[in-house]
Amino acid sequence: MLSKNQIKNITALHSKKERAESGLFIIEGDKLIAEALDSSYTIESIYALSTWLDENDRKIKDSKIKLVEVTADELKKISLLSTANNVLAVCKQKHFDLDTSLFQDKLSLYLDDIRDPGNFGTIIRLAHWFGIPQVICSPETVEFYNPKAVQSSMGSIFHVNLVTMDLGEVLANNGENKPAKVFGALLEGQNIYLKDDFTSGILVIGNESNGISSKNLKFISDKIKIPPAAENHAESINAAMATSILLSEYLRRKKYF
Amino acid sequence: MLSKNQIKNITALHSKKERAESGLFIIEGDKLIAEALDSSYTIESIYALSTWLDENDRKIKDSKIKLVEVTADELKKISLLSTANNVLAVCKQKHFDLDTSLFQDKLSLYLDDIRDPGNFGTIIRLAHWFGIPQVICSPETVEFYNPKAVQSSMGSIFHVNLVTMDLGEVLANNGENKPAKVFGALLEGQNIYLKDDFTSGILVIGNESNGISSKNLKFISDKIKIPPAAENHAESINAAMATSILLSEYLRRKKYF
Repeated sequence: MLSKNQIKNITALHSKKERAESGLFIIEGDKLIAEALDSSYTIESIYALSTWLDENDRKIKDSKIKLVEVTADELKKISLLSTANNVLAVCKQKHFDLDTSLFQDKLSLYLDDIRDPGNFGTIIRLAHWFGIPQVICSPETVEFYNPKAVQSSMGSIFHVNLVTMDLGEVLANNGENKPAKVFGALLEGQNIYLKDDFTSGILVIGNESNGISSKNLKFISDKIKIPPAAENHAESINAAMATSILLSEYLRRKKYF
Repeated sequence: MLSKNQIKNITALHSKKERAESGLFIIEGDKLIAEALDSSYTIESIYALSTWLDENDRKIKDSKIKLVEVTADELKKISLLSTANNVLAVCKQKHFDLDTSLFQDKLSLYLDDIRDPGNFGTIIRLAHWFGIPQVICSPETVEFYNPKAVQSSMGSIFHVNLVTMDLGEVLANNGENKPAKVFGALLEGQNIYLKDDFTSGILVIGNESNGISSKNLKFISDKIKIPPAAENHAESINAAMATSILLSEYLRRKKYF
């Protein structure tokens, strides 16, 4: 049973401002909660139907997590989904420090102003699949803990280190290390299928409509291109598709060359 | 100026049944209309704001296309988009015969029950990008001319031959030709990055939730797999992402080996 005050506190997290102030965010559904439990994130409280609690409470070993039984009606009130699931949890946001040592032998992603939460979540899911340990976001990129972003990551958000920083600052932080390669997909780029050194550094993913921002173009050390089957193809592919193809090429080089 | 009857005839095409009976469908926006004009499809009529007609009417060389000036209000009435564009057109559906000769040296896609119009459109867009000439759909796959499917193909629907047929029938039609390779992504499949003969035949893309249907499993001659970075990754990737990675591997073999 939820008090009015409890409902108010949870639904407050539907707003970006409240998430920023409280350092909390919401996740919904079995899959997301299982991924959160299996990660370094902290779940504060779980609001679930009695059926869910009966089936799952022995899986929850951390006794600090508050378990609250709710009715379907109450869940509907606190849920953001059009069809409420059988469980919702409140998690603590996490802060990661930039790890520049990763630039030497792995690929990090830099999201240059990705605005759509669905695209953001999909890219995080791809990063997780392809073993990208760190995703750095421009300050203009959508908030990590936006509920739509979290849900569309399918829980991968819990397994990728997320940092917000200007690209210039990222490179300045690299300090006395060997300079990091910075890859960006541009029209005059080198055919990605033929670029053997696409194995470590930073891959910049541009904004859905505008591509890589003018302020970040100067940092691109290695221009790359995904060539279409025929050069006269006017078609483009979207940010998430381009990311899946580029990360697939990265993994192939790392593991199957 | 549109008569009530004209509005009725156009909005009737919002329904699948009417599209099937009339053999017509709707497209909206500059990009789609440009792609349709640059294809083998026939546009019957264009309904546009006067500003659009002023800018574009000399591009329309086919004098059989009926050009109708409409007001913003009228366009809103016939549009399916939440924000109506400045132009809508009615096109004729097209019938393509299955071309089995393609199986010998190119890849065709087989969509095994792709239900989401957005996924369907995205896959068509990828097929166009990667030079797939033919996409064959199971009878359960979403209707080609569903407005959401058409719009999310970004016009690629006009450049890929679309056929509806059971997979068993497709293979029976192959007759006395060399048997077609049938690729399908399955858990026990061969690592796609190491499969050198992924260069021609049919690639089966399974349903979003259920994968390849049991009735089609028996036709798969070559099981393949997209391996994640780490084998313990519980994550999956969705149908459109898997398609982009597989088609990228196909194009790489065809052009850049």
